[in-house]
Formats: sequence, structure tokens, C-alpha cells
Amino acid sequence: MDPMIEGVLLTELKIIPGESGAVMHGLKVQEPSFKNFGEAYFSFISMGKIKGWKRHSKMTLNLIVPVGKIRFVLYDDRDNSRTKGSFNDFCIGPEIQYSRLTIPPGIWMAFQGIGNEKNLLLNIADIPHDPSEAEQLQIENSRIPNFKWQ
Amino acid sequence: MDPMIEGVLLTELKIIPGESGAVMHGLKVQEPSFKNFGEAYFSFISMGKIKGWKRHSKMTLNLIVPVGKIRFVLYDDRDNSRTKGSFNDFCIGPEIQYSRLTIPPGIWMAFQGIGNEKNLLLNIADIPHDPSEAEQLQIENSRIPNFKWQ
Repeated sequence: MDPMIEGVLLTELKIIPGESGAVMHGLKVQEPSFKNFGEAYFSFISMGKIKGWKRHSKMTLNLIVPVGKIRFVLYDDRDNSRTKGSFNDFCIGPEIQYSRLTIPPGIWMAFQGIGNEKNLLLNIADIPHDPSEAEQLQIENSRIPNFKWQ
Repeated sequence: MDPMIEGVLLTELKIIPGESGAVMHGLKVQEPSFKNFGEAYFSFISMGKIKGWKRHSKMTLNLIVPVGKIRFVLYDDRDNSRTKGSFNDFCIGPEIQYSRLTIPPGIWMAFQGIGNEKNLLLNIADIPHDPSEAEQLQIENSRIPNFKWQ
């Protein structure tokens, strides 16, 4: 894999088992991943489907997968970045790796459902949804080098 | 049902369907339910199991059920409340009623898994978890009148 893209954080989170059901950590105000609270929303992604590419100019994303398994692919084409040209690929979910993925603005991101049943993503974003600060591209495009989705 | 307990809010949330999976709203900074960001965490609750009773002296809870169905039972024994002595009972989940339940401090709360598969709760709380600001009671106790769980 390419080096970790500058500014991206992957933070292992606790799962506290319980007889009636587990408690799973998400995000705390005192953690370095937290910048500000803008909006929290969920996205479901079906097995094999891909949402993306998307790039935010202002929003920092805090992505958590409480159910299922999701592959996140990140591409850095920021001119001022040490990791310009890098791809990162993270497969996340409570059964494989329960970690929070923090993505600063300026990085292209797409994600794919890789669990057979429900795949659920929570984004705790530092600003509320605002379409004017996000760009979108088709998965196949002339700007981002081809990524081999499985 | 008893009248809505003073200070409790039930806010209908949007589900935006999509071919690859729905997007579901959670909480935005500009909504009246939002006070402050302290911590976001998940709880699973198995079918028929009950977690509670619990009462927070400082925390305001914002409860969202993205998967399954959960029954929340609230009991108000605040001396200064117009609704002292009231029970409220809410069954929430994306297939039955996709709403956010906001519970101010001082109210007893318990919840039960009522969906056959996974039942998942997200709490976006205004302060981080702090055991010193929460009291707990067994479901059967001498302080809270008996509630008929099904």
C-alpha cells in the first residue's frame, strides 16, 4: 500500500461486549479526531455497490462502521501534499477492524459495501451537509487513476 | 399514553432512498435538539433484552435507531416537573418510525430490543461518558412503578 495519506487518521475503537448487546465507541470531544460538530448522518451501502468519488473542500469526515464491512478508498491529489498521488484502501467493520477513519478536506474518497448483509456508515462531520463544498466524479473518470475494485 | 414528558423531544428524521443504499439523517448542529457535542457511541440490544433503568444528572441524550426496532420507556419523577409520575413509551426504528428521541437530564430511561435481528442505537450525547453523573436501578425496583414490558 502507498504511505498513509497526510492528515488521514485511523483510530482503533473499543467494543465493550455485554450479555444484552455490545457497546461500541464512536467519537469523544477530547479525541484528536474531533474538530467540531456539524452533522451526523448514516449511509447504507449494499454489497458490491460503490458510492463516490467525492471530495470535500471544507468538511472533515469521521467515518465509523457499526454494522457490516465497508471498503474505503482514498486518493490524494493535493498539490501541497507529501503523499500526492497516493491511494489508501481501508476495510472496516466491527468483525474485521473496528476503527474510525478521519479524512481531512481535499482528499478524494469512495466506498464499497463488502459485507453480505447490511453495511452501515456513520459520518460525524465537522460542518453540516453543504453541496457547494463537495465535488463529485464518476468511479471511472479521466482524473483519478484507475483503482481495481474487487 | 401519559402526556409527553416535559423536555423530551421526538423529531422525525429523513430517510433518503438510493439505489446503492439509503442516506438517513441523524443530527445537525442547527437543530433545537442539539446542545453540545460530548460523545457519540453505539449500543446493540438483543431481541427481548432490556437495558436500564438509568438516569443522568447532566447528560442530554440524542437517541437514533438506524437498524432494527427499539422500545424506549421513560419515567419522570422530577419534583419540579409538570409531568411528574408520567411514563412515555416510544417504539423507534427505520421501518416503523424513524425519529430522534431527545431526553434531558433527570429522566429515568430503559430500552428493549424489539426487532428480530440487529437492533442498534446511536447516542449523540452533549457530554462525554462519566459514570459519576448516572444512577442505575434494576428493572424491578421499589422506586419506579412497575412497567408492563411485553
